[in-house]
Amino acid sequence: MNKRKIIRTLGYIILTLGFLMIPSLIVSAIYQDGDSFEIGSTIAGTLVLGFLMSRVKAPEMKMRSRDGYTIVALAWLIICLIGAIPMYLSGVFESYIGAFFEMVSGFTTTGASVLSNPEYLPHGVGFWRCFSHWVGGMGVLVFVMMVAPMNNENSMHLVKAEVPGPTAGKLVPRMKETSMINYGIYAFLTLMCFILLLIGKVPVYDALCLSFGTAGTGGFSPSSVGFAAYNSYYVEMVVSVFMILFGVNFNVYFLILIKKVKDAFRIEEVWWYFGFIAFSTITIMANIMHTLPSAGQAFRYSFFQVASIITTTGFATVDFNQWPEYSKHVLILLMIVGACSGSTGGGMKVCRVVMVVKSFFTELKHIMDPRHISIVRLDGKKVEKETLIATRVYVCTYFLIICIVTLLISLNNQDFTTNLTAVLSCFNNIGPGFSAIGPMSNFSVYDDWVQLLLSLTMLTGRLEIFPMFMIFSRSSHEKRLSL
Amino acid sequence: MNKRKIIRTLGYIILTLGFLMIPSLIVSAIYQDGDSFEIGSTIAGTLVLGFLMSRVKAPEMKMRSRDGYTIVALAWLIICLIGAIPMYLSGVFESYIGAFFEMVSGFTTTGASVLSNPEYLPHGVGFWRCFSHWVGGMGVLVFVMMVAPMNNENSMHLVKAEVPGPTAGKLVPRMKETSMINYGIYAFLTLMCFILLLIGKVPVYDALCLSFGTAGTGGFSPSSVGFAAYNSYYVEMVVSVFMILFGVNFNVYFLILIKKVKDAFRIEEVWWYFGFIAFSTITIMANIMHTLPSAGQAFRYSFFQVASIITTTGFATVDFNQWPEYSKHVLILLMIVGACSGSTGGGMKVCRVVMVVKSFFTELKHIMDPRHISIVRLDGKKVEKETLIATRVYVCTYFLIICIVTLLISLNNQDFTTNLTAVLSCFNNIGPGFSAIGPMSNFSVYDDWVQLLLSLTMLTGRLEIFPMFMIFSRSSHEKRLSL
Repeated sequence: MNKRKIIRTLGYIILTLGFLMIPSLIVSAIYQDGDSFEIGSTIAGTLVLGFLMSRVKAPEMKMRSRDGYTIVALAWLIICLIGAIPMYLSGVFESYIGAFFEMVSGFTTTGASVLSNPEYLPHGVGFWRCFSHWVGGMGVLVFVMMVAPMNNENSMHLVKAEVPGPTAGKLVPRMKETSMINYGIYAFLTLMCFILLLIGKVPVYDALCLSFGTAGTGGFSPSSVGFAAYNSYYVEMVVSVFMILFGVNFNVYFLILIKKVKDAFRIEEVWWYFGFIAFSTITIMANIMHTLPSAGQAFRYSFFQVASIITTTGFATVDFNQWPEYSKHVLILLMIVGACSGSTGGGMKVCRVVMVVKSFFTELKHIMDPRHISIVRLDGKKVEKETLIATRVYVCTYFLIICIVTLLISLNNQDFTTNLTAVLSCFNNIGPGFSAIGPMSNFSVYDDWVQLLLSLTMLTGRLEIFPMFMIFSRSSHEKRLSL
Repeated sequence: MNKRKIIRTLGYIILTLGFLMIPSLIVSAIYQDGDSFEIGSTIAGTLVLGFLMSRVKAPEMKMRSRDGYTIVALAWLIICLIGAIPMYLSGVFESYIGAFFEMVSGFTTTGASVLSNPEYLPHGVGFWRCFSHWVGGMGVLVFVMMVAPMNNENSMHLVKAEVPGPTAGKLVPRMKETSMINYGIYAFLTLMCFILLLIGKVPVYDALCLSFGTAGTGGFSPSSVGFAAYNSYYVEMVVSVFMILFGVNFNVYFLILIKKVKDAFRIEEVWWYFGFIAFSTITIMANIMHTLPSAGQAFRYSFFQVASIITTTGFATVDFNQWPEYSKHVLILLMIVGACSGSTGGGMKVCRVVMVVKSFFTELKHIMDPRHISIVRLDGKKVEKETLIATRVYVCTYFLIICIVTLLISLNNQDFTTNLTAVLSCFNNIGPGFSAIGPMSNFSVYDDWVQLLLSLTMLTGRLEIFPMFMIFSRSSHEKRLSL
């Protein structure tokens, strides 16, 4: 695809970003937080830039697979760079890199912060920070697809690159409608969560921010005391349940919507997902019980934390850094597992874990009897060979990247647990980690260059590795083609 | 294959084990350590048991792939169980499980210990402990194959199951001769190391033990002060260089032996291996320089430790647990990488790492252009599809097992770094870890059940995962066949 066409597509995306920032301007104006000028001028600039870029003349062309990946990677970089501007202008961040980290953390629904007191953020910018979770959760480009003029095939390439999971699901033949259905379900569930929080007497602004954080499985809290501010069993349960709901494969909701309930129950990944949640909740509960006055209390903390970590949201109602070792180890493993594919959650995705486990047993059978043909089944159907290869390569690369990034940031001389869980947390888009970056601490313990590296790690994790590498490998590929 | 045939084969192995214990009896007699009776009676019992089992009448049958795996797994379990008896009888270990752990650690060439003062071991048992490194390094069954009557095809199945690496190499068409060549090279290099240590004024007993530890890339030291006892730059350099030599793919030596030097230099894995060593040595040297009086000192420590960890030997000349974070992180990564396939070293093996890295780039190209066919090349040749699948499944399973075992032992309430590095250390057959099981500490911090679990982890790592699972899955398979 030629460069003009890429610029034009990016133009639409930037234009959409401009419009998406308008609610923050309204919030800023309502609360009179003195930040309206900064937000307003950023919006103006963004809209002008987007408009100009979308006007670039380019021939109508068929997108190729790698074009989709490149555009998605560039788009995510650009929206984070632009989105960080009003954050930086608010003056709360020490450097633009800190603001960029926070913005990447927002859009990738990580929820890792460099701020010790997010409540000092002006309301407009604070709203933008949480709203970015909501936009990033379902996907920025999935959103753009609903509003921008783009043909079906080209959209498919973008969705394939942006939507997490080993295979991109089309609910209906047309991509635009699939996006709309997904966003419809998403908006409906978010609204439910918001209303239930209001019923729990959470202030409107907080309820909005929390709903966005829950829906996108992001994890930014509007204040540093987090859930302690509401101190309500009800609020915590609402958030727990909705985190879990947003971590479910959205195909389930679609199938229920079109009354194919039986098919919805046949999605194996979801059963494993609930199995992991049940196992972890119960064993952690048993493990922390002796430190707490009642089993109910243990369940409250355990269930919330398990839901928060497996869905890669990253909210905390307790300093789990102080928990007994077993509980901490379970949480670290859940960080890796992550939520279902086709959900708003991150991590390696449950279905990949399932495929790895099944691959092991297939290989075992194959070794026992070399004539045995390796077939891995999921949801009762044979998994395509290509999907299997892609999944295994993905999992291997996943660990490779974690090793390399952990090694790199160790130069900042934090301890091993801090570094490893920081990388796990960022790469899986969770938020808090352990040791020096536990739930009661934040990423400001790291120098600027580490924050930048971890920002790229978050993007790489959110876009599932390959798109980010496409940017760098593009030029060499072009060269080869032009030979 | 029928059970009688398996018992018969195990008989030969147990018989060989009995003979292999005789040198320890001689050492015990020479040093008059008062342990000769215990060792002697164990040998007698072992020989009788082995003889009786090898007399079991069984029809001559063709072994199948899974029979090889099952025999190898059972054989390793049995020799560790028997080998631990004289250790336990010496009275130095608190429990039989501790002695079993030590024996497994010996045969798997791990070198992890539950003893704080190995010098209190009687000489006979102490010699046996170190000698097990030498036997386990090249492989117990590879040894048996040289001496026991077994046809070529059956031998091949055993070697495939025991020799580490994604593909089992036959140097010459007949397995028996391949074993002899490998053991010949192995014995020659060990002898060289021993002589050079004697020249360095290391006492005979210590030189023997150190040579065995170095050759098998094991890591048991005859005393708790380890290399500090000799305090010699020369001794450390000899051991460093030989550790690296034993971590090289033995095919290299064979090719040099038959004067195909060019082919020897074409083995890509070895280049990567040296690359990793050079990179790690230099960067760690730079990282620890400021804490030491001279660059020479930094090189001495850095080179020795890198050689010791990447080859999965596990000797230590310094408490690297106190090093700056970057250096520790490098060592943790080297624990995973491990040595070359077809060497005496453990770990994931360099060639698997190389294949994973190459797989990533192939997949990247495939995504950029779906018509691109994924080919991974090694040593200039296309890697078989089956080898690639096996490697990727292996790497995925590798991380899966590390996660699960780490979670299990966390119930013993040690910190995350201790648990993770304990599992890495045992699974990769290294020896020391970090935090509570650093080079100046030992595995007695763990309860008996953890020691047992880690023993199985060492065996699983040494035999490269699949054989150990074969034991458990056997019965179900038989059942299916009999339906």
